[in-house]
Amino acid sequence: MKIQNDLILRAARGESIERYPVWLMRQAGRILPEYRAVRSNLSGFKELVETPERAAEVTIQPVDLLDVDAAIIFSDILVVPEAMGLTYQMVEKKGPWFEKTIRSEEGLKYAEFDFDIEDRLGYVTEAIRITNRELNGRVPLIGFAGAPWTIFCYMTEGQGSKTFSESRKILYTNPTLAHELLQRITKVTIQYLKAQIKAGAHMVQIFDSWAGILGKDQYAEFGLKYMNQIASAITEVPLTIFAKGAYNSVIEIAEMDCNTVGIDWNMDMAQIRQAIGEKRTLQGNLDPCVLYSSHSEIERLTNNMLNTFKSERHIVNLGHGVYPDIDPEKVKTFIKTVKNYEFKR
Amino acid sequence: MKIQNDLILRAARGESIERYPVWLMRQAGRILPEYRAVRSNLSGFKELVETPERAAEVTIQPVDLLDVDAAIIFSDILVVPEAMGLTYQMVEKKGPWFEKTIRSEEGLKYAEFDFDIEDRLGYVTEAIRITNRELNGRVPLIGFAGAPWTIFCYMTEGQGSKTFSESRKILYTNPTLAHELLQRITKVTIQYLKAQIKAGAHMVQIFDSWAGILGKDQYAEFGLKYMNQIASAITEVPLTIFAKGAYNSVIEIAEMDCNTVGIDWNMDMAQIRQAIGEKRTLQGNLDPCVLYSSHSEIERLTNNMLNTFKSERHIVNLGHGVYPDIDPEKVKTFIKTVKNYEFKR
Repeated sequence: MKIQNDLILRAARGESIERYPVWLMRQAGRILPEYRAVRSNLSGFKELVETPERAAEVTIQPVDLLDVDAAIIFSDILVVPEAMGLTYQMVEKKGPWFEKTIRSEEGLKYAEFDFDIEDRLGYVTEAIRITNRELNGRVPLIGFAGAPWTIFCYMTEGQGSKTFSESRKILYTNPTLAHELLQRITKVTIQYLKAQIKAGAHMVQIFDSWAGILGKDQYAEFGLKYMNQIASAITEVPLTIFAKGAYNSVIEIAEMDCNTVGIDWNMDMAQIRQAIGEKRTLQGNLDPCVLYSSHSEIERLTNNMLNTFKSERHIVNLGHGVYPDIDPEKVKTFIKTVKNYEFKR
Repeated sequence: MKIQNDLILRAARGESIERYPVWLMRQAGRILPEYRAVRSNLSGFKELVETPERAAEVTIQPVDLLDVDAAIIFSDILVVPEAMGLTYQMVEKKGPWFEKTIRSEEGLKYAEFDFDIEDRLGYVTEAIRITNRELNGRVPLIGFAGAPWTIFCYMTEGQGSKTFSESRKILYTNPTLAHELLQRITKVTIQYLKAQIKAGAHMVQIFDSWAGILGKDQYAEFGLKYMNQIASAITEVPLTIFAKGAYNSVIEIAEMDCNTVGIDWNMDMAQIRQAIGEKRTLQGNLDPCVLYSSHSEIERLTNNMLNTFKSERHIVNLGHGVYPDIDPEKVKTFIKTVKNYEFKR
């Protein structure tokens, strides 16, 4: 199917664009009353993720309501450990909680790594198919997965953490197990991303939410090594890598075989552009808290950011997921400002 | 009183040292069974902080048991907002929780900023006096406080957070209030540090635990501006600034009028040394998770770190507080390794 607004795909590939494409991480979600209405009819977050028709519905909402240049499939990075057999609960105000964790060779038995993706994660690929049918080519659809390091963190720690000291302990006490588990996660993740692409995802993004808790050498050994396998394997569609807090490694990420590098709101976009040149598209990185400002301040700060870009090779986004209590009208101001911005050629 | 082991003071001032001094952030605390024994006789963490004899006792424990080169007064950065009238509870497994928060000019009335330090925080200065009496000059005693930005975070957010979006929102929606509150916190913090010094603290450290959640420009405006006032005001004893995660600003911190800059475990010590030269002492930065390794690995990785130092102007520490489930014998191996390390002159 021909995509009518393919701006973000052209931007990812470094092709000519007439303006910057824009979307928001977590755009399908709690900021929209229309999302909350759909969710209130279900038992909770997980039922929404696992019900393709409803997941497709909330995926499309921001395209209709916010006028973004891409949809991103409504799902969660933790569907992958769950498909492996590590089920989780989403505890209100606390985040995910896993009953079983993998902290030894013995623990590897809790999970399966060799299974049919359509069999266990068919609800995601089905949601992708429905979304594309209903989007009818209006904008591209983004698929995604967690990076192996971040999935490893949840599978070993069993919950969110400020330090992930249980996860990081394993890197010192049993690096063989760490590599074994990371390699298995990587294999499944590649299969999962390819299944999303086969189902119709027009581009895919890897989220490495906990990149920032490792020093440069450990992130190279336990993070980038496996990220790189994914980057090499995904050849069908443009790939974005977003490693939050990976200050020390963003240049190395840009050297991988990806199209776009996500930049969080604390990183210096101009400095990174200078270091990597024109070889990759950069995505980001307005501070999500800017959207708490007045409309005129949002306009001013968004334009300020765009004025610092030294290249047209950008996809505009926030530097982190949009916060759930942001007024959707403020999001619209952000999006309009980006769309109205004229390149100074 | 003459300090017998004044190594850390000489290292902070950049004077000649015969070996690297070493201590651990959170060395007085849950890693020691002797600490847990003292605490089990009290109602909890806060009673221990507020009982000078017991606070002094646990402050001295790591000097006796671990053979560190400095004691750090057992206390908490949140005693400052509490003295201002914002009381907090320490909720098990969740961290601090404040009933009242300051999010508007109205909210400023919840707190007092003009009070006698000895009157409200005399339990800290008394603990310092008792500690020094009992230490009898064996090692220096470190006093400390939270940085204004971090204290601001707790006073506005009211609890720990991954994003501190309530705190950061104020920087956009009401920067005047943010500056007013930060200025008031700064004034009290300077008075508090001076009271600790007057009571006998031989050096002081500022902890900016949430430095890493701001971009460079905002951290300069709302963080460093006030940190700098403290650095200028503290002239009596050596000052250490530890701004965790302040990757973008560590060079600017080294330009302040401080003696020592704390480096977290994800920062590249060699790179920072190269950038700042010999003008400041650097403190840190072994990954706290290294102490989960075997004794021989701890020895190897500690020596590896020391071998990367390109200067003798260092105080050795972890790059973050020691984790509570670390075996004290492992801490001893770390300390012995540092003490046995010979300078290659």
